[in-house]
Amino acid sequence: MAAEKNQGNRITELFSIEYPIIQGGMIWCAGWELASAVSEAGGLGIIGSGSMYPDVLREHITKCKAATSKSFAVNLPLLYPDIDKHVESIIELEVPIVFTSAGSPKIWTSKLQSHGIKVVHVVSSAVFAAKSEAAGVDAVVAEGFEAGGHNGREETTTMCLIPSVIDTVDIPVIAAGGLYDGNSMLAAMVLGAEGVQMGSRFVATEESSAHIEFKKTVLETGEGATSLTLKELTPVRMIHNAFYRKVIEAYEAKASKEELAELLGRGRSKQGMFEGKLDEGELEIGQIASMLSAIQPAGKVVSDIVSQYREAGGCSLGKRFEF
Amino acid sequence: MAAEKNQGNRITELFSIEYPIIQGGMIWCAGWELASAVSEAGGLGIIGSGSMYPDVLREHITKCKAATSKSFAVNLPLLYPDIDKHVESIIELEVPIVFTSAGSPKIWTSKLQSHGIKVVHVVSSAVFAAKSEAAGVDAVVAEGFEAGGHNGREETTTMCLIPSVIDTVDIPVIAAGGLYDGNSMLAAMVLGAEGVQMGSRFVATEESSAHIEFKKTVLETGEGATSLTLKELTPVRMIHNAFYRKVIEAYEAKASKEELAELLGRGRSKQGMFEGKLDEGELEIGQIASMLSAIQPAGKVVSDIVSQYREAGGCSLGKRFEF
Repeated sequence: MAAEKNQGNRITELFSIEYPIIQGGMIWCAGWELASAVSEAGGLGIIGSGSMYPDVLREHITKCKAATSKSFAVNLPLLYPDIDKHVESIIELEVPIVFTSAGSPKIWTSKLQSHGIKVVHVVSSAVFAAKSEAAGVDAVVAEGFEAGGHNGREETTTMCLIPSVIDTVDIPVIAAGGLYDGNSMLAAMVLGAEGVQMGSRFVATEESSAHIEFKKTVLETGEGATSLTLKELTPVRMIHNAFYRKVIEAYEAKASKEELAELLGRGRSKQGMFEGKLDEGELEIGQIASMLSAIQPAGKVVSDIVSQYREAGGCSLGKRFEF
Repeated sequence: MAAEKNQGNRITELFSIEYPIIQGGMIWCAGWELASAVSEAGGLGIIGSGSMYPDVLREHITKCKAATSKSFAVNLPLLYPDIDKHVESIIELEVPIVFTSAGSPKIWTSKLQSHGIKVVHVVSSAVFAAKSEAAGVDAVVAEGFEAGGHNGREETTTMCLIPSVIDTVDIPVIAAGGLYDGNSMLAAMVLGAEGVQMGSRFVATEESSAHIEFKKTVLETGEGATSLTLKELTPVRMIHNAFYRKVIEAYEAKASKEELAELLGRGRSKQGMFEGKLDEGELEIGQIASMLSAIQPAGKVVSDIVSQYREAGGCSLGKRFEF
């Protein structure tokens, strides 16, 4: 059920933030520099813990808290091998909000909430949104097929997913996938979302810890130049680089699941996104990369989105749209 | 370049219609009954000529003109084998608007326009939108990955495609794919479109010539229950029925392109959509089928969309949004 038109925005309230603009907690890109910059600008910054060893995450949380007194979050992939240590750090260092993904929200939600932490789960279908609500999460991110990185097998796009999730759950819904500016933010809010999460747009910021060569490649990525592939393993959207072409060759040679896993190997995303190995690495980004044209400060990104949203008349459409 | 915020809506003006709501010219579903009902209700109805023999199309155009004095259109797939005969009928019977698809708009655009016919081309990428504009078409339909039936190979979703096409061409853009109600219509307009084309929503109307068993199946289609497949031939989005499962088995058995073509055979969509053979047939529909819950009169669909759009505050966002 959508929020009532005249009900205030529940996402800004839930997170104690100024604007319902959330920066995705992307591996290799979202460290404390990016998260704190977004939070300082009035959005919600998220540290991506999926690519961090436990002691690295502790360091990022500590530095983020030193850099901003505002709300921030940690993204926690529930299949992370050392998850107990991550959860321990999150609780001990008093992270106020956790976005969980890639796994069942049943296991950790109540434990985190018992420490006063708000929990949001990322889903790619209305079925998982309903399961997440039943598990007691405070909100869901509904992420469409066009999003970068790991994604659902159902291939439901943002335009179709948001109304479906809105119809299914009562908790607030954050839209993700294909969103990058004030107009697309407003489009997602019109579909019923109360906030937006943007990943690709924040990869191309000065504070993103992605390798500069990866950032430049993102800016050069044209329409149709990414694909969701490797569905036999974990579906992932990546740029059509040399490694991607090897994946396609493997499919053409009718490779087995095991052969695909061997081809993928380990550390592909680190090589591509953090070390700037543009040929060997896996370059994860969303379809909307085709609309990006500059590497900007994260705070400027937030304020530009807010200006464009207001200019488009967003705040005039009802209390849910106001900030 | 998007239309200026304070410029009037160019789609209602171009087609001389009341609302910029266009019913897709779908094969086996969009005959004169549906097209005339949509046009009578203030939208633009389109006869889908792709599934019609030349004499059948003549009959549908004649009956449509008898049923409504308002604007209507014919959808013309440019790969239609007997295209000269279709074009002859369109000109002779004074069809005011033609939507072309599946082929190059270079060949027929100027001929049709020389007879006073408005020409709109359906595209799935900004590159093809630019080529269409260069070919002189009056507007484009930008159709995202989530749409039903035949579709582009690039898999660009509506949320990503619309801003990209808006940035690329100066002619007005009609959005398609994943749109079904007043909110999704407004979302598409916020992204820069000046009109919307809806297919799946109009399949599930009383006037649609689809088989009643296909219409019922559309209403039962859940989220994630369609896929874009057969990309080696012509990519097509269909429901996961028995025929679809045979396609998947063929892929698992590493079928060649020739074997896939043999499996598809001829007349699959007619069997499924017109004859109601739900197992053997190809059931083409968009992802948004999951949101449909009733078979309604087409005129009621149009008026409900208009009411919801207005209720959402659409008309307050600028002259381009007004009708």
